Amino acid sequence: MTGSDGAAPLERLSLNQITVDQWTLPEVVEGCARAGIGTIAPWREPVAQIGLQAAARLIADAGLRVSSLCRGGFFPTASASDRRRADDDNRRAVDEAAALGTDVLVLVCGPPLGRDLARAREEIAAGIERLAPYAAQHGVRLGIEPLHPMMIGERSAIVTLGEALDIALRFDAGVGVVVDAYHVWWDPALERELARAAGRIVGFHVSDWLVPTPDLLQGRGMMGDGIIELRRLRGLVEDAGYDGPIEVEVINRDLWRLPGDELVALVRERFAAAV
Amino acid sequence: MTGSDGAAPLERLSLNQITVDQWTLPEVVEGCARAGIGTIAPWREPVAQIGLQAAARLIADAGLRVSSLCRGGFFPTASASDRRRADDDNRRAVDEAAALGTDVLVLVCGPPLGRDLARAREEIAAGIERLAPYAAQHGVRLGIEPLHPMMIGERSAIVTLGEALDIALRFDAGVGVVVDAYHVWWDPALERELARAAGRIVGFHVSDWLVPTPDLLQGRGMMGDGIIELRRLRGLVEDAGYDGPIEVEVINRDLWRLPGDELVALVRERFAAAV
Repeated sequence: MTGSDGAAPLERLSLNQITVDQWTLPEVVEGCARAGIGTIAPWREPVAQIGLQAAARLIADAGLRVSSLCRGGFFPTASASDRRRADDDNRRAVDEAAALGTDVLVLVCGPPLGRDLARAREEIAAGIERLAPYAAQHGVRLGIEPLHPMMIGERSAIVTLGEALDIALRFDAGVGVVVDAYHVWWDPALERELARAAGRIVGFHVSDWLVPTPDLLQGRGMMGDGIIELRRLRGLVEDAGYDGPIEVEVINRDLWRLPGDELVALVRERFAAAV
Repeated sequence: MTGSDGAAPLERLSLNQITVDQWTLPEVVEGCARAGIGTIAPWREPVAQIGLQAAARLIADAGLRVSSLCRGGFFPTASASDRRRADDDNRRAVDEAAALGTDVLVLVCGPPLGRDLARAREEIAAGIERLAPYAAQHGVRLGIEPLHPMMIGERSAIVTLGEALDIALRFDAGVGVVVDAYHVWWDPALERELARAAGRIVGFHVSDWLVPTPDLLQGRGMMGDGIIELRRLRGLVEDAGYDGPIEVEVINRDLWRLPGDELVALVRERFAAAV
């Protein structure tokens, strides 16, 4: 799993689509071919842009692996009809993951709708419970991704690895957790929770924490530009038994202004140097 | 402690200086007299502007109570000489707290200096260990304030109440924790950690979490404008035995543009309605 200098081998790099948000999905596929990257993690919107079947064919024809599909979730809803719509959409996300050839659907669980955070967390667990059997039937594992606590109002009421894991462990191994360095690195309980997550980690994402952080949602740094001990964190994740793809998911508006090939070259270089 | 409508009585309101950063300390003292607010929490910089003895006299002559002084801390340092300077400064902060008539010095513990977060946390615990005897001699309790994890790079490597409490419990009751709603409300372990903090809470601060949050450091909301269940949180803090002053600490650039008296009237109104 580890090169002679301690770096993760390039074979483990998966390019998360949003890192190169300036590209369409066909451009991502072509760019990965040029850069020698063999795995991608698409988002649903750019897949929908060209159509699911076309996307699946494009990816398969290029010989690319798919590490995960981003994303299902957003479980807290304001009404029963909203809940049915969300459930339908989450089942479609499972279908899309299966069609694209990945067995991991990333769950961004959704924010509280008002002030009742405890209720939002209950609705999230209940939503996963409704979705899990369908996902299992389709050979797709659900990856609960805890998000950084600063994103609680917009993205997810699940903000620690421990909490994500507490939910996952109510189910069999078809429900796991996604460990994103950016979202969890600050947690004083991280080492303990990663050990507890052994066998349940279904994804590992990397980027970096910039000082200062320019934006709450789109201010992530390229690996090596911030203060996360990425290599140490990768070691902890590997100690917990995860040796799968490592998704580079850098959500940064400034980097989206670069030419895609230049950005992908930087991703490769920093993956080798800092991950 | 609680009015007939469940609101905290106005007597518990302490105006944290930074909420009205448009005012000098003399203006804060006069403004509180006009608004019928009996307790304040000064910061060291505005105290230094008019001189410690003058500030102490001004506050005492106005009959104001002081709930805490903000702040000591910033323990991680790059060299032995920096560490000595930080220690000297923290002892001066203790002196200032005592001179101003408060028995609580708030500790903002400081960020990691590089990528070694574990080392920063060790340095923080060691720094508190060096400071605690001096504080005890001067009748000042140290309040470790965990800050929101998004502030880790600029302000504090201590980002959860549990972690702050783990440090505090290494000492006698002269070292406690400050519970700021803004910094801790997202924590799924909050209820458990507040119960564990019984007898060690030396301060309670309120503001609100805005959606969206306009700024990582200066984007806090006035109570009632965001999504924190402040009254429920106050109940948990009271269940843990804390019945002291409640500091209103709203760090928000937009509010600093208001006339001070208008802002203080809003603080009073929202304290009654939302806390």
